[in-house]
Amino acid sequence: MLTGKNLIAGEAVDGTDGSFTAAGAVARFEEASALHVDDALDAAARAFDAYRHVPAEARAAFLDRIAANIEGTDDLIAVAHIETALPAQRLAGERTRTASQLRMFAALVREGSWVDARIDRALPQRTPLPRPDIRRMLVPLGPVAVFGASNFPLAFSVAGGDTASALAAGCPVVVKAHPAHPATSELAARAVMAAADVSGLPRGVFSLLQSTRNELARALVQHPQLKAVGFTGSLRAGRALFDAAAARPEPIPVYAEMGSVNPVFILPGAVAERGAAIADGLKDSVTLGVGQFCTNPGLTIGLGEARFDDLVRQLEARMRSAPPGPMLTPAICRAYDAGVIRLGGIEGVTTTRSSDAGDEPLGVPSLFVTRGEVLLRNHAIGEEVFGPSTVVIRCDSRDELYRVAAQLDGQLTATIHGTPADLEEHALLISILETKAGRLIVNGFPTGVEVSPSMQHGGPYPATTDSRSTSVGTAAINRFARPVAYQGFPQPLLAPELRDDNPRGIWRLVDGELTKDGW
Amino acid sequence: MLTGKNLIAGEAVDGTDGSFTAAGAVARFEEASALHVDDALDAAARAFDAYRHVPAEARAAFLDRIAANIEGTDDLIAVAHIETALPAQRLAGERTRTASQLRMFAALVREGSWVDARIDRALPQRTPLPRPDIRRMLVPLGPVAVFGASNFPLAFSVAGGDTASALAAGCPVVVKAHPAHPATSELAARAVMAAADVSGLPRGVFSLLQSTRNELARALVQHPQLKAVGFTGSLRAGRALFDAAAARPEPIPVYAEMGSVNPVFILPGAVAERGAAIADGLKDSVTLGVGQFCTNPGLTIGLGEARFDDLVRQLEARMRSAPPGPMLTPAICRAYDAGVIRLGGIEGVTTTRSSDAGDEPLGVPSLFVTRGEVLLRNHAIGEEVFGPSTVVIRCDSRDELYRVAAQLDGQLTATIHGTPADLEEHALLISILETKAGRLIVNGFPTGVEVSPSMQHGGPYPATTDSRSTSVGTAAINRFARPVAYQGFPQPLLAPELRDDNPRGIWRLVDGELTKDGW
Repeated sequence: MLTGKNLIAGEAVDGTDGSFTAAGAVARFEEASALHVDDALDAAARAFDAYRHVPAEARAAFLDRIAANIEGTDDLIAVAHIETALPAQRLAGERTRTASQLRMFAALVREGSWVDARIDRALPQRTPLPRPDIRRMLVPLGPVAVFGASNFPLAFSVAGGDTASALAAGCPVVVKAHPAHPATSELAARAVMAAADVSGLPRGVFSLLQSTRNELARALVQHPQLKAVGFTGSLRAGRALFDAAAARPEPIPVYAEMGSVNPVFILPGAVAERGAAIADGLKDSVTLGVGQFCTNPGLTIGLGEARFDDLVRQLEARMRSAPPGPMLTPAICRAYDAGVIRLGGIEGVTTTRSSDAGDEPLGVPSLFVTRGEVLLRNHAIGEEVFGPSTVVIRCDSRDELYRVAAQLDGQLTATIHGTPADLEEHALLISILETKAGRLIVNGFPTGVEVSPSMQHGGPYPATTDSRSTSVGTAAINRFARPVAYQGFPQPLLAPELRDDNPRGIWRLVDGELTKDGW
Repeated sequence: MLTGKNLIAGEAVDGTDGSFTAAGAVARFEEASALHVDDALDAAARAFDAYRHVPAEARAAFLDRIAANIEGTDDLIAVAHIETALPAQRLAGERTRTASQLRMFAALVREGSWVDARIDRALPQRTPLPRPDIRRMLVPLGPVAVFGASNFPLAFSVAGGDTASALAAGCPVVVKAHPAHPATSELAARAVMAAADVSGLPRGVFSLLQSTRNELARALVQHPQLKAVGFTGSLRAGRALFDAAAARPEPIPVYAEMGSVNPVFILPGAVAERGAAIADGLKDSVTLGVGQFCTNPGLTIGLGEARFDDLVRQLEARMRSAPPGPMLTPAICRAYDAGVIRLGGIEGVTTTRSSDAGDEPLGVPSLFVTRGEVLLRNHAIGEEVFGPSTVVIRCDSRDELYRVAAQLDGQLTATIHGTPADLEEHALLISILETKAGRLIVNGFPTGVEVSPSMQHGGPYPATTDSRSTSVGTAAINRFARPVAYQGFPQPLLAPELRDDNPRGIWRLVDGELTKDGW
């Protein structure tokens, strides 16, 4: 059933560079070569000329068909479960999310206002110079490379948010599958390819490359036909792609979402009011998905008084009894264990772990406790350990709490638990965190990333390479578009979005006023 | 009257690194040192904490005051004329444009909808999981460095579009003045500083550095407190800043507008209908401002038939009689002369120049004529020569014309002259140019960049380092902002833009619908 081959512009193409398998060894997969990259990008560039002119309705129908095909691929969840060890129920939820994302972008494209149309009509009588007619809208950037993530084999992978938003914008996509789930990737890729065929689109609109090699990733990012990159994964890999793209003769944007420690601040009033409930919620958020989300809280920060110590003891008890769980890959599990040993070995840090995993390669929930001054001296305590752990920082004073906040790296999220009085008193803390994170949460937990227009899943470096962008929510489409102004264009040459009579019925800024009216 | 010193957070600070003068030697200017960079950025970072929370009205009033001060600086035009050799009338127009830009951003900030507010209200009953309340808006990035351009000493310099849009977004600005007009820069800087004082803003919101040194520019771009860069100038300098920013531990966006050759395509029907008028308009556009705009047309492309040859002969006659003019600096004039010699020396290129400038350092209007196949063989013909020249490309066939279009580098603008029949017939040409340029012009000329919401002054590399951005028009503000989502925030902690009752009366996307309503 699986070809194990690279899928380029609708064809399963033979390889010459060896092969690899992943967990479960569902099949062998052929390593993509530089030639495959060339072929995929050449096909994408040709497809772009047609795809960018496809009417919005046809583009939306394509996305809807991908969603339906993803839902209709029978073995998808079973195969993903074998490859990732993620529970079937979780994967079913992720499949629903993946389809919903595709349909959300379909609806966005159908509605059409995302192109940010702006029209300044001619003022032939203006002095000293007449004003020409100028109209501006977003157009797609060109072929996009998407690097699938290991931790969301559906929602942030082959047909995930990056692919959905790039296709929605009008960009062909070349996916470099994550080598931890190549069979899942092939199934999802075939769902996309089948949708392209039924939609009558050029097959170069989508290709899938399978590879375990850094050189292949670099060749893809440096291909002259490529115009942007979407990536979810580690800081090291994301930064390497960013550097490769910046060093190109023509630099291109890289949207790398590289995770973060998602600090949770717990203020004294909240501790007094509902310390036990916070300890419960925190344990759940830290261990959710065996700590393999971008948004699990890796730092928990409070003011060291007796009640906070109680909360920490409750959290210790909950973490001690939290069950170990299977991680995505043996490499991720080893990296987690190494991180746990590194953190535990820092002077001034105490460790609590749940029951030993024995010889099983499981992620063991781990809690570390230390003091603010230890973190302030040792920046490495604030670096991400991907897995079910959090470091509790007990600060001795409000001043120290703020200094801890001020020295944080860029984050996807930052969370504050506080009563109204706490929050009023610690306005400065909120102000500091606003410069550190893409999403601020009050009295909640950072796991659970809503897919909606208001979501910001991004943040200052090193959370991402581009804090101006989001990889979740409707605004993700803007990563793959650029504005073009059309000056003095006759009506028939304009895209429908810019014509006088507004046939698409979209919101437009006409002579400075937002309106759906045409004329 | 002039201090000749670096102006840091409201103070004229002594230097220790020597000094320089510019044309006219209005005064000596002290070279900024790395210490000045540190002081300016530390002050900017401190000012940012206050400035980003300043109400929109106060920020708008600050911009309005800068505009008034720029208009009220008596010697500004006289000094700029001495330093740049630009005619006083042109400089007066540029001053008006500078003040208008500042007021445009003041109006944008006052109106307020630019923050792209999005609100998804809580759905506590949603299954399987309730939806939290999430609200998102743009917030300022942080301290911005602006590198003034030589060719617009007011509108793209100290108080120009980059500074205006960064201040409008809520970012403090550190300007590195162009060393060709340091006195003009000091006068404009003092207009900004006085406005900051009257507005009661922290003085670190603006600083001016004077320098002739590349190391100083690099130190500024690599300063850890800096969050973005605006630049207008040469490809070499812009790319160097881009590379320095990409190599930082924390990479930051660089918006470098590096010019282009702005190709003008003249189709057969238009040649037949109004060849003489096109030759007139083209000569004016090529020689406007002694060819020192980013948008002067450096390439003129047509289909080689008898009527096009007539047009070229008319253009030759007009260029031959166009007067030489003083250029901005001796270095720019020497670079132009070198470019003219380089182009004229290419085999298959013929040269026509207007009357010799003699020993005067003047820019001599120059016309080059060659064939499509010569350009296709020699990419250097399509590279920018900054000055009053254009290269006419005679193509032998429609296919060759399209191949010339397809191999163009990224451009700020691309222009087509054509009758309705021409344009219908050459839809493919327009489609190709859409991938090459930020602004497409039909039956006009690229010089004259309207300042309005629909303007796109940017384009694919090497026209700029970021085709998603514009340096002219209201959208320029978006370069200096990033989104933040606020989840579960109580009303009093939200910015007014995100509160239920919409006290600012701005457009917001509430539960997916654009509205000015609150509740």
